[in-house]
Amino acid sequence: MNNSSIVSINDLSKQDILSLLDDAAFFEQHPDSKILDGKLIATLFFEPSTRTRLSFETAVNRLGGKVIGFSDPAATSTSKGETLKDTIKMVANYVDLIIMRHYLEGAARYASEVTDIPVINAGDGAHQHPSQTMLDLYSIFKTQNTLDGLTVTMVGDLKYGRTVHSLLMALSHFDVRFNFVACPELQMPEEFITFCRNNNIRFNISEDFNAEVINESDIIYMTRVQRERFSDLMQYERVKDLYNLHNAMLDDSKPNLRILHPLPRVNEISQDVDDNPKAYYFQQAKNGVFARQAMICRALGITNFRDLIK
Amino acid sequence: MNNSSIVSINDLSKQDILSLLDDAAFFEQHPDSKILDGKLIATLFFEPSTRTRLSFETAVNRLGGKVIGFSDPAATSTSKGETLKDTIKMVANYVDLIIMRHYLEGAARYASEVTDIPVINAGDGAHQHPSQTMLDLYSIFKTQNTLDGLTVTMVGDLKYGRTVHSLLMALSHFDVRFNFVACPELQMPEEFITFCRNNNIRFNISEDFNAEVINESDIIYMTRVQRERFSDLMQYERVKDLYNLHNAMLDDSKPNLRILHPLPRVNEISQDVDDNPKAYYFQQAKNGVFARQAMICRALGITNFRDLIK
Amino acid sequence: MNNSSIVSINDLSKQDILSLLDDAAFFEQHPDSKILDGKLIATLFFEPSTRTRLSFETAVNRLGGKVIGFSDPAATSTSKGETLKDTIKMVANYVDLIIMRHYLEGAARYASEVTDIPVINAGDGAHQHPSQTMLDLYSIFKTQNTLDGLTVTMVGDLKYGRTVHSLLMALSHFDVRFNFVACPELQMPEEFITFCRNNNIRFNISEDFNAEVINESDIIYMTRVQRERFSDLMQYERVKDLYNLHNAMLDDSKPNLRILHPLPRVNEISQDVDDNPKAYYFQQAKNGVFARQAMICRALGITNFRDLIK
Repeated sequence: MNNSSIVSINDLSKQDILSLLDDAAFFEQHPDSKILDGKLIATLFFEPSTRTRLSFETAVNRLGGKVIGFSDPAATSTSKGETLKDTIKMVANYVDLIIMRHYLEGAARYASEVTDIPVINAGDGAHQHPSQTMLDLYSIFKTQNTLDGLTVTMVGDLKYGRTVHSLLMALSHFDVRFNFVACPELQMPEEFITFCRNNNIRFNISEDFNAEVINESDIIYMTRVQRERFSDLMQYERVKDLYNLHNAMLDDSKPNLRILHPLPRVNEISQDVDDNPKAYYFQQAKNGVFARQAMICRALGITNFRDLIK
Repeated sequence: MNNSSIVSINDLSKQDILSLLDDAAFFEQHPDSKILDGKLIATLFFEPSTRTRLSFETAVNRLGGKVIGFSDPAATSTSKGETLKDTIKMVANYVDLIIMRHYLEGAARYASEVTDIPVINAGDGAHQHPSQTMLDLYSIFKTQNTLDGLTVTMVGDLKYGRTVHSLLMALSHFDVRFNFVACPELQMPEEFITFCRNNNIRFNISEDFNAEVINESDIIYMTRVQRERFSDLMQYERVKDLYNLHNAMLDDSKPNLRILHPLPRVNEISQDVDDNPKAYYFQQAKNGVFARQAMICRALGITNFRDLIK
Repeated sequence: MNNSSIVSINDLSKQDILSLLDDAAFFEQHPDSKILDGKLIATLFFEPSTRTRLSFETAVNRLGGKVIGFSDPAATSTSKGETLKDTIKMVANYVDLIIMRHYLEGAARYASEVTDIPVINAGDGAHQHPSQTMLDLYSIFKTQNTLDGLTVTMVGDLKYGRTVHSLLMALSHFDVRFNFVACPELQMPEEFITFCRNNNIRFNISEDFNAEVINESDIIYMTRVQRERFSDLMQYERVKDLYNLHNAMLDDSKPNLRILHPLPRVNEISQDVDDNPKAYYFQQAKNGVFARQAMICRALGITNFRDLIK
């Protein structure tokens, strides 16, 4: 594997993460530049994800780079029976960096192993999505001025939601206490519970999304409960509205509380929350551009951008 | 609503229109420049429209700007249940201007109300498409050297064709006489007839696309009669070829006559008209780039481009 | 037809080909530049071909040009009944060069006849794909240091494979001997056999992909045997694995042998060949960028690029 590929948040050390957060803050101050002038970057979306693709393409374009790629799996030679290896080796001929989204777990790792150019994983199945985790971390860091001493409450689908798994792993480098709020069918998987126990990470499991949990939180991380996760639709009907956040629920919350959500949301955050200053999910999405600029420069080995800008 | 958004031609005063026409003429003289250097613009096509999208993307690229976006509604988070508001607020994080096409009437207006960045409506349902109207106006102005004292004949589908409705409204600022040539099923809707009466706009309604009408016209604006507009296909079969223009019909037309069409055409303008110097629909499409450059600069608040170029 | 359009490899003289090879070699040494600064180029893919599109878009972007276009036929006005002529005339309003792929034979030729801007054929049906041929030629030239005195073995589907037909025509300018290795159902069509006879081109027809043929080859050009070519699937099952190349088959091959393939491959070249230094298909794909840069500059009439770079 090319050492500068970013496939999983778990590949990054605490020092790597802090360095990327620092870089993201720099890019937020200097979002436009020409430091990627002459760089051509591929966005290969074997499964559509408009939000992630546009965020990465913004990151590249704002730094003066150019983008080629595809957003529609149907339009690729994969449909002619070509292997992922061949597709990656073909595209690697053209570009300086591959940003890829794939419906299969492990696809980005494999891609990074068959080519010499760096690969950034923009999501592989239900597995890893490190740039989402970096923007989550950056959003927490920006709003709390620290990643230590925080209570982070994760709500909704903790079983299938890869964002909460990766965020949990990344925050394990820091002094964070967790509330896992979900129905039993969608609670945090045993492996992550075991991970917390083995690493002395404090956590609390709750089926109730109640005032006590909300009012002690510094961060509430909402996720979508998707109908397709349930084999029994009766179960879905029973729980689908239990983990929805309404503005009145925030009345006694901490002043520094911020509400995060990886988006898209459906109704798990009521529209009346949007104007609450504690709502942070749209700014969170904006932070994604800066976090991704930091990751792109790292993957490309561009370390002197502070000298290049201004 | 952000004041610099352009949602409807009706939002523009006569002075706005004249100013945009003047700017379009300037861009036709200076089509390539770098005045949008550093600007990132989204083209969000919730319904496909290759012609309009390519025209806007040409306008941006020729002025040195960059484009992100999507052309395929299936690839958006809308399919995951995301609201238009959330999609717009997300994209607004990334770009300086949103150019959007949507299948629902009012979508662009709504988008302009939920974001602080400007929005240009590139068509919302059967409703508004102001850049089409501006390029129509610019084409009339360029070929006739005036927008006053003209006879404009609109032919084909006057009921559902949003281009003719918007053009009628825009031309109401000027001294124009209209011929509305269509079958009764597809005639100009009563609201526009009433509008003409209330504003002392002279018009003539005709079912016949005959020599008299043609020979008094300065502009003939052809539109496509679409089969899907008819609930009774017998009616469609009866009228589908009544409003087709053939070259021989132009023999006694005025020398300054120009034939316009919003394109795409099917067979309502015969191929034998294409080489007639009075055929203007392809140049009309080209004018779209300049009209859109004027609108983009206005929406972005860039007013000093005459100083920036040359 | 615009003289600088490139529709068929047969339009190019031996001198044209040698000149393009020389230019491709120059671009390989200088892949990035700004010589297309201010140029806007359309990639119109009426049928998807991600590989070819990304290669062309890389070629343009690496030289500083910009791209608009579509990769999905469903998103075009063709679906509204627009003629190819109208689509081409519309796009010609916007760009400096059209690169087009179409599912119909002759489409690119027709396009080049209805517009004044140059057109590069990126594949029209089973007919012509001149940039593929140029990259094949460039790959042979680079690896053999000559196009004369070579034995070129073509394997697989020689009946429907447009790449082998065009390569044969192009190599007819040089002193090349051919082996045509295919099952009878997919052998080289009679017209090309006749062409060889009439032009004193030496060739050998073989149903067997055996050691004798392999060991005398300087170039082996593999192609995919597609199931959809067979009306009788029994025939397909009989021959589908007869023309697969495995690493052990190369043990006694010439040191200068290189294996080419237009890609995508399925299983006609075994994965174990990939690490053999004689495998050249991925580098061949990379050569496509340089060959296409040479063709783009030729079509645009840019001849002074050696002065512009460095």
